[in-house]
Amino acid sequence: MIRVAICGASGYTGVELLRILANHPKVKVTAATSEKSAGKTVTGLFPHLDAYRDLVLEPMDRERLLKKADLFFLALPHGASQEAVDFFSRSKKTVIDLSADYRISDVATYEKWYGLPHQYQVTLKKAVYGLPEIYRAKIRKSRLIANPGCYPTSAILGLMPALKKGLIEPARIVIDSKSGTTGAGRKADVAVSFCEVNEGFKAYGIGVHRHTPEIEQELSGLAGKKITVNFTPHLLPVDRGILTTIYAPLAKRLTQEKAAGIYTQAYGGEPFVRVLESGIFPNIKNVRGSNFCHIGVKVVERTNTLIIVSAIDNLVKGASGQAVHNMNIVMGFDETEGLRNLPLFP
Amino acid sequence: MIRVAICGASGYTGVELLRILANHPKVKVTAATSEKSAGKTVTGLFPHLDAYRDLVLEPMDRERLLKKADLFFLALPHGASQEAVDFFSRSKKTVIDLSADYRISDVATYEKWYGLPHQYQVTLKKAVYGLPEIYRAKIRKSRLIANPGCYPTSAILGLMPALKKGLIEPARIVIDSKSGTTGAGRKADVAVSFCEVNEGFKAYGIGVHRHTPEIEQELSGLAGKKITVNFTPHLLPVDRGILTTIYAPLAKRLTQEKAAGIYTQAYGGEPFVRVLESGIFPNIKNVRGSNFCHIGVKVVERTNTLIIVSAIDNLVKGASGQAVHNMNIVMGFDETEGLRNLPLFP
Amino acid sequence: MIRVAICGASGYTGVELLRILANHPKVKVTAATSEKSAGKTVTGLFPHLDAYRDLVLEPMDRERLLKKADLFFLALPHGASQEAVDFFSRSKKTVIDLSADYRISDVATYEKWYGLPHQYQVTLKKAVYGLPEIYRAKIRKSRLIANPGCYPTSAILGLMPALKKGLIEPARIVIDSKSGTTGAGRKADVAVSFCEVNEGFKAYGIGVHRHTPEIEQELSGLAGKKITVNFTPHLLPVDRGILTTIYAPLAKRLTQEKAAGIYTQAYGGEPFVRVLESGIFPNIKNVRGSNFCHIGVKVVERTNTLIIVSAIDNLVKGASGQAVHNMNIVMGFDETEGLRNLPLFP
Amino acid sequence: MIRVAICGASGYTGVELLRILANHPKVKVTAATSEKSAGKTVTGLFPHLDAYRDLVLEPMDRERLLKKADLFFLALPHGASQEAVDFFSRSKKTVIDLSADYRISDVATYEKWYGLPHQYQVTLKKAVYGLPEIYRAKIRKSRLIANPGCYPTSAILGLMPALKKGLIEPARIVIDSKSGTTGAGRKADVAVSFCEVNEGFKAYGIGVHRHTPEIEQELSGLAGKKITVNFTPHLLPVDRGILTTIYAPLAKRLTQEKAAGIYTQAYGGEPFVRVLESGIFPNIKNVRGSNFCHIGVKVVERTNTLIIVSAIDNLVKGASGQAVHNMNIVMGFDETEGLRNLPLFP
Repeated sequence: MIRVAICGASGYTGVELLRILANHPKVKVTAATSEKSAGKTVTGLFPHLDAYRDLVLEPMDRERLLKKADLFFLALPHGASQEAVDFFSRSKKTVIDLSADYRISDVATYEKWYGLPHQYQVTLKKAVYGLPEIYRAKIRKSRLIANPGCYPTSAILGLMPALKKGLIEPARIVIDSKSGTTGAGRKADVAVSFCEVNEGFKAYGIGVHRHTPEIEQELSGLAGKKITVNFTPHLLPVDRGILTTIYAPLAKRLTQEKAAGIYTQAYGGEPFVRVLESGIFPNIKNVRGSNFCHIGVKVVERTNTLIIVSAIDNLVKGASGQAVHNMNIVMGFDETEGLRNLPLFP
Repeated sequence: MIRVAICGASGYTGVELLRILANHPKVKVTAATSEKSAGKTVTGLFPHLDAYRDLVLEPMDRERLLKKADLFFLALPHGASQEAVDFFSRSKKTVIDLSADYRISDVATYEKWYGLPHQYQVTLKKAVYGLPEIYRAKIRKSRLIANPGCYPTSAILGLMPALKKGLIEPARIVIDSKSGTTGAGRKADVAVSFCEVNEGFKAYGIGVHRHTPEIEQELSGLAGKKITVNFTPHLLPVDRGILTTIYAPLAKRLTQEKAAGIYTQAYGGEPFVRVLESGIFPNIKNVRGSNFCHIGVKVVERTNTLIIVSAIDNLVKGASGQAVHNMNIVMGFDETEGLRNLPLFP
Repeated sequence: MIRVAICGASGYTGVELLRILANHPKVKVTAATSEKSAGKTVTGLFPHLDAYRDLVLEPMDRERLLKKADLFFLALPHGASQEAVDFFSRSKKTVIDLSADYRISDVATYEKWYGLPHQYQVTLKKAVYGLPEIYRAKIRKSRLIANPGCYPTSAILGLMPALKKGLIEPARIVIDSKSGTTGAGRKADVAVSFCEVNEGFKAYGIGVHRHTPEIEQELSGLAGKKITVNFTPHLLPVDRGILTTIYAPLAKRLTQEKAAGIYTQAYGGEPFVRVLESGIFPNIKNVRGSNFCHIGVKVVERTNTLIIVSAIDNLVKGASGQAVHNMNIVMGFDETEGLRNLPLFP
Repeated sequence: MIRVAICGASGYTGVELLRILANHPKVKVTAATSEKSAGKTVTGLFPHLDAYRDLVLEPMDRERLLKKADLFFLALPHGASQEAVDFFSRSKKTVIDLSADYRISDVATYEKWYGLPHQYQVTLKKAVYGLPEIYRAKIRKSRLIANPGCYPTSAILGLMPALKKGLIEPARIVIDSKSGTTGAGRKADVAVSFCEVNEGFKAYGIGVHRHTPEIEQELSGLAGKKITVNFTPHLLPVDRGILTTIYAPLAKRLTQEKAAGIYTQAYGGEPFVRVLESGIFPNIKNVRGSNFCHIGVKVVERTNTLIIVSAIDNLVKGASGQAVHNMNIVMGFDETEGLRNLPLFP
């Protein structure tokens, strides 16, 4: 049994960590922080979290937390996470950070897109980008995991086999993503109020979304050269789910069968990635509440294009589920521990 | 490990049984039937049911099924279940029937409301109404469980403490229920198509819904005399959930504190029923995907009325989860086995 | 052409007034106020309001407004409307107030339920409750209309024929209402954020909702004696619509045919109320975006109860459409002017 | 007053025509056909269509219809429309066809994508593609209008200024479209049932959707050379709306200001197309129920790409509203007659 703390437990990723960990046999959540709701029990604030009637939300007093837990999930806002990660990491704790603060290895890129200086570059160098399908070996040996963003997870998993095998020209990739509204966080804001989002659909952050450099960093790594991409996020009137539709020019002649075979093989040993049969495409509803990523690929000969569609639950594989997966790897637990629930459909 | 068959596995309650049982440590699903989709794998038909890539849907050949399983969940249409229950029951199998065919003990009442003769009255007498909160002891000794309807579960749990303690006049109870659309089943029908249901809300079956006699049978038992009720179901534009709002005249003076205390005590030992603090009321979203029932009570002195609100997930506590709970009781498993997942919120 | 001002134009009822009046041939909107968004054009703030590119939102400077308009729609919060109504009314302007401040004729009742003193009792006496189906003649002669609340409109229209004809016992009426989320207003609040409301459903304000005394005032008038009711509102995960289900004990034997006939006749001359054929019940989706009220009635002999279901769009017949209807009556326009659009289905 | 018949009045585009025409001052709907619902009144089948209590749905008896109307809207399935258009057109009636049968001028292309022979090529040559923003002059002189598809309308309006002005390289355009579920039609089909669509999102018809050749025909015309495009449709869990996100490589250096200026000027005189200010992007909710098309453009210098987002209501500007617009042009009515309602928001 390890003792786990969740910092930022009243946001949607924090709440999702609590939900997932409630039935993890090797973990006990010993602390959960929230500035606004400090003093309330978790179950009092979130009636669905029935297992936490005795866990009282507390303000984030780091020294106090140090004594209460061995592993820290940080679900804090970007920027706010920088110092906390550094502190717990230097205190020899295992840290899984769900913010973007330790995902971008190039400091100048981070500072440009996030508009903030990065003040912990020594610690930054120790962080491993926590996408198990690429970095499993490194994650196993690390104690500081920068948990990937939701959009990047869907885009990178969709493109990895194609880039590694050189199936596509990396120069003109289009990544068109659509996310459920939990991706915007839990907040009081007219823009995410029910009546503005429901029955609506829009693009946002066109050309300037902060997940762009994270996507480009990882795709560049896979392509073996620096690339830029067009990435456009959209807001779906659903709670959960990201569907990403990717377009890339084929680098060479490729049959549907071949493409499907390469993808199936690439993810053959992965517990959470499923390549669907040719002709079947992902639906966010088929992964809801689970850590699965579903992928469909289509070779369009008429336009010489590879189209890839990936679907994840943004709060699970796109955030808290992947964080637990990373914890399992780091701690040497069975990788699927706590993550075996099937999606909730319908 | 017991071997379990699911008859009618391509409807929503069948699918939900498969989802829940996938992680039940003492059960193996060895057969799943579907007339329309026989020959397909479960995962092929339902991509979210990742754990059943090798389970092929088969037509309902009873003799063949007898050899494949020890316990049968029947998720068949009303009427169609009569004979199947009788067959498996006489063949010494444990049967949990999710249809209404064995819920109504009075044959004339069944025949009047369902418009069908009941041809297996000997077997009918052996059936136990599978609401654990009332009939746990009987369920434990039975091998034939008539799993309660979704609306009745929400209404009966809401009223049980008040009726047993004589808090209310049973003569003029109003039960106003609102159900998610999975309650209508999985079918090709314009009336349940997205564009007709979405952004809509309506009452249906006013005064004639078939769950009425089931509700009245159980409430009469609790009240110790025969009663009739007004029960009105409505269709909510959500996937899952039933919220039932109940109005009953107080039989005697009662404080809010006293009412809350009686309810809390009544369900104190129940693993799946939660009485919320005074002032907090249930939301279907707080029980989604789980076997919980949340209950709130309010004494309205101005009108001398007790108002009770209960919330369940119609597919879980209102159907498949309760069926698994019944199985756990019958088989002597831990009652919460397979049912410990917290609700999916948001 | 009359000049119209809308005070509180950036809330949902204000926005809806702008939408409806854009095509009203006898009205020009000459002023629209918003404290928060003063300085922006209406179309800049609400891109769907294409007709108001030149109308700039302004702060509520009463003296300035006096010169700009002849008729004032006040869509201000309860309490804030008291003084404004008094001011414009004393300045000889026609006022249609969408708040609750002038709806309750008994000052003590207002003060008890709203927790505020009423400081303009002389003006209060001049106000007419703007439900045209009851008060058309008085509205025609008034210059101060207290536009009804959304829930009261649905409840009163549902019960009027039954109470006037003495069909029901007024002592034990249950009014179970379900409203779309626009009813909560346009605001930054986690409780109305998409992810909390979507796929959810709950009751709120049980026994204490402020529309209760308004409903009781009007029903008492129709019944000819003071009555109390049980009224419970619920929050639907849809933008618009109220469905109200009403239960009342029959006062005497009544056939379905007779009940339907009485209702049909009662509303025979009304342009906006439709009594549906026996066996057909209202759906909020069938009135969406329109000023219609649909009503269905059902005699349940088994329980000796009359069940009535009514549906309106809370922003139209429940607020801004009814306000325009009242304006049409007051000004002597055709009653349906500006309100002839059919509902938007699907 | 012209007499209008609607053939196929019980599908969503037929229903929408009835809704729009109910308040058109120069039109009387004298006939509406439906094979399945013949004999019922329109209002009986669709309670929201209150204005048609006396209009009885009839089977499609062409000879009989000839005598009843001067102008025919055909809202029939693809294929079924071929012969009907030919018949009414040869009978000297004005025909506005909402099917795809007369949109594709190249017979071989039609036959390849629709899998049907085209048997009325003489009539086909007379048809004008009914996109007023391109073909207004031709429409005015025609009596046979092939009303554009919903996806093509959104894509072509989005790309027209850029292609006409040579801003982009036409060779690698990506068109990623997302449509509400009314686009799938009114039908009994599990795939469009509420519980399968709600909270879901998926791509479909990747690389093979039949609107592709229609889009390519018109874009080729605008580009002045034959081009192919990647077009991917997706299914949104909303009733109405299409949002199309378009990516195209810039042909030359272009500033945001210049791009916005070209778009604004291109649509300056159009009653139904609005180019939003730079930085503001369309939301389907802002055009719901109206004939508006909102367009936003963004120059992404980093990737040398022009990104265009367009939003329409698929049933209005994407079908029935555009059909009425075409009728207005053909008949010499004011172009906005019957189409002046503002969008329904929220």
